[in-house]
Amino acid sequence: MSVKLNEKLLESLQVAIQQQNNRFIQETLKDKHAADISVLLDQMDALESKYILRLLNPEMSADIVADLEEDTRKGFLKNFSSEELAGLMDYTDSDDAADILNDQPVKVREEVIALMQNSEKAEYIIDLLHYEEDCAGGLMAKELIKANINWNIKQCIEEIRRQTKNVEKVYTVYVVNDKDTLLGRVSLKKIVLSTDDTKIKDIYVSNIQTVQTYYSEEEVAEIMRKYDLEVVPVVNVQGKLLGRITIDDVVDVITEQAELERQIMSGLSETAEVDDSIWTLSRARLPWLIIGMMGGLLGAQYMGFFENELKIVPAIAFFVPLIQATGGNVGIQSSTIVVQTLVGNPFDGKSLGSRLFKVLLVAIFNGIVISSLVFGFVMIFNEMNMAFVVAVALFNVVLIASLTGTITPLILDRLGVNPALASGPFITTANDLIGLAVYFTVAKLLFSI
Amino acid sequence: MSVKLNEKLLESLQVAIQQQNNRFIQETLKDKHAADISVLLDQMDALESKYILRLLNPEMSADIVADLEEDTRKGFLKNFSSEELAGLMDYTDSDDAADILNDQPVKVREEVIALMQNSEKAEYIIDLLHYEEDCAGGLMAKELIKANINWNIKQCIEEIRRQTKNVEKVYTVYVVNDKDTLLGRVSLKKIVLSTDDTKIKDIYVSNIQTVQTYYSEEEVAEIMRKYDLEVVPVVNVQGKLLGRITIDDVVDVITEQAELERQIMSGLSETAEVDDSIWTLSRARLPWLIIGMMGGLLGAQYMGFFENELKIVPAIAFFVPLIQATGGNVGIQSSTIVVQTLVGNPFDGKSLGSRLFKVLLVAIFNGIVISSLVFGFVMIFNEMNMAFVVAVALFNVVLIASLTGTITPLILDRLGVNPALASGPFITTANDLIGLAVYFTVAKLLFSI
Repeated sequence: MSVKLNEKLLESLQVAIQQQNNRFIQETLKDKHAADISVLLDQMDALESKYILRLLNPEMSADIVADLEEDTRKGFLKNFSSEELAGLMDYTDSDDAADILNDQPVKVREEVIALMQNSEKAEYIIDLLHYEEDCAGGLMAKELIKANINWNIKQCIEEIRRQTKNVEKVYTVYVVNDKDTLLGRVSLKKIVLSTDDTKIKDIYVSNIQTVQTYYSEEEVAEIMRKYDLEVVPVVNVQGKLLGRITIDDVVDVITEQAELERQIMSGLSETAEVDDSIWTLSRARLPWLIIGMMGGLLGAQYMGFFENELKIVPAIAFFVPLIQATGGNVGIQSSTIVVQTLVGNPFDGKSLGSRLFKVLLVAIFNGIVISSLVFGFVMIFNEMNMAFVVAVALFNVVLIASLTGTITPLILDRLGVNPALASGPFITTANDLIGLAVYFTVAKLLFSI
Repeated sequence: MSVKLNEKLLESLQVAIQQQNNRFIQETLKDKHAADISVLLDQMDALESKYILRLLNPEMSADIVADLEEDTRKGFLKNFSSEELAGLMDYTDSDDAADILNDQPVKVREEVIALMQNSEKAEYIIDLLHYEEDCAGGLMAKELIKANINWNIKQCIEEIRRQTKNVEKVYTVYVVNDKDTLLGRVSLKKIVLSTDDTKIKDIYVSNIQTVQTYYSEEEVAEIMRKYDLEVVPVVNVQGKLLGRITIDDVVDVITEQAELERQIMSGLSETAEVDDSIWTLSRARLPWLIIGMMGGLLGAQYMGFFENELKIVPAIAFFVPLIQATGGNVGIQSSTIVVQTLVGNPFDGKSLGSRLFKVLLVAIFNGIVISSLVFGFVMIFNEMNMAFVVAVALFNVVLIASLTGTITPLILDRLGVNPALASGPFITTANDLIGLAVYFTVAKLLFSI
């Protein structure tokens, strides 16, 4: 839907709510996808949203609430009693339901589960609440079709029929033994093409990819990407089938990761978009601005020690921006190359030495190129002496910034911190100070000779 | 597979190739997934890879080649005759086959298509070669199951059986009329649960998401993400069904976009990883380093105009790093917030003015906070005068950097350039110069009073 169409629709719905024109609302939303209605509700206030939801069927309402943006949803559900929430949860997929209830106070959570009509779903949710949100256990849904290895196709189809309300999208049928141990899967295509008395054990695929409950979101995403899976079964350490993760959740994980990384790299302390409130936008920006400011003030203090030198040779000051910009650029480039390499495949300690050696070689090459160019340019307008100081300092800054830029993300990664932090103002602020120190040290050494 | 296991396996395979121990190779790779074998082949030379592929069945070989990294694949396929390539293409999915042939010289491409045995596949490929790689037409595969609306379930199952070799993964059956116009779809679940004589027209879903051939990769990704689709049909302007795009290709698109953005934001002119050659690594880094250097040299020239002022009040120089760091940080933050907002939903011109006004308000707020803090700190160690100059300059730099940081990505986006470029060294270099100009102008004005 185009932005303009959307705005018109939103207005007409809001008018209809005021006039309690329920027929108009139902007619308008009849053929719309839950995701499109969610986008509309994201722009309404909580009471308007609730008014609209009450006019739709419960499956649709559940899908819409699951699709709302997390912030909107939190505010929106505050207007729901535990009874109303329970009614919604009865129709929500177990993975989304667990996410939604995880955001509620413990008391509400317990009440809602106790009030649910769909007892199988309630059990699913209780089970899922045990897992951390950012691991495979937190991503999985309990709804899936499983068939015993001793069944035939007819029994398998009966099971699909029995589950048809619970499992909206059937990707595949999982094959288990009497102890619920996952043995493999049968595709729906094979079921369609087989006769009713075909035995599951004769047609199932046994060698399949699985993930365990404790795998991180990133590992799950990497496995599903690598093997082109649209669904992956989740098992415990004994191999028991516990749930499944579908690709749509993983696409969201990948998208959120990219957003988080963009945010970290640009020195925002929280996700912010143009349409957020002025307060949110300021709060997202100030922390790193203040850290950068402290760095700048420290730099000023440091340069203060060289006041006399600057009085005699003010040209020293001219090249401070050059030193800083180069140090900053080299540092960010280096850390990004490491982050790029870290995505998906962990650094093995063994070859760290040889890799650092290569980083050093690249830095020496780039350092020589940049320093030579600068030497030439500075010579034109300044004395030989000055050109020499700037070139030598710049070469060292490139070397040091390359090494700090390479090592910092590795250390952050080892500490369990997102290594992208090193591509942000973090390394730039540090490099600014290191750059100044190197430059003035070189200047002092060379000019005093 | 762990890194170490992988290395051992690689070594043993290379030994087996030298000893022509074919049985060992076949035994070792028997139960492996194509994606895992691709990872191994990515580390072998082209002749070793070819040796291994010849020992595997043609479907497996085709999957492996499609999964190879693009660079490895290009080098690898140079060792293939047109006949050999044609044999491979007979078993490759049409979307991958078109991508592979697109990388070949026109003459080879024509030869390969003429030599293919699978004439239906050859036609598919010819059709797909018309589309740009980065649009929906370039992403789609021609292999799909379609059923005429007048058929019953039995005819539909016959069609699935007929296509079973061509279409490895069946997600859904598309419903078309006699002119091949897409009318809707029937899920495999519904087919499994319906009797043989059920009419397609009584059970199909008519209101489905489609994309047109000219949609960009990003639009396709956004639609599939929003509506949680694992497959989307591609139609032309007349609504004729042309192909389908599966979520695995879109996951690759999203991953590549994130990689590209990371690269652009950190001033790398091409994708680079730690394990690339020294030459690639240097080449990826030098262009922006040189641009940053030019900026630094221009800054030096500019500061040269104030040599006398600097001799009298060297303290002016002390705060250059502070001004620059703050300008850089504010600029990158601003442009990232715009990029974040641009992802998925285009900026509508109408509200641009009000949005810029908000940016200005945030900038004024942050500017006041930062300037006040700096004013306080500078006062402690310097004169009142200096503190005043730095604070006023800083406030203006925050304002200007916010506006340039906000407007630049919008202009780039309008010009069809990736707006993430504005979060890279581009805006930082520009802001460095603007910051210097503002600072020295303010200093000159205030000190001369």
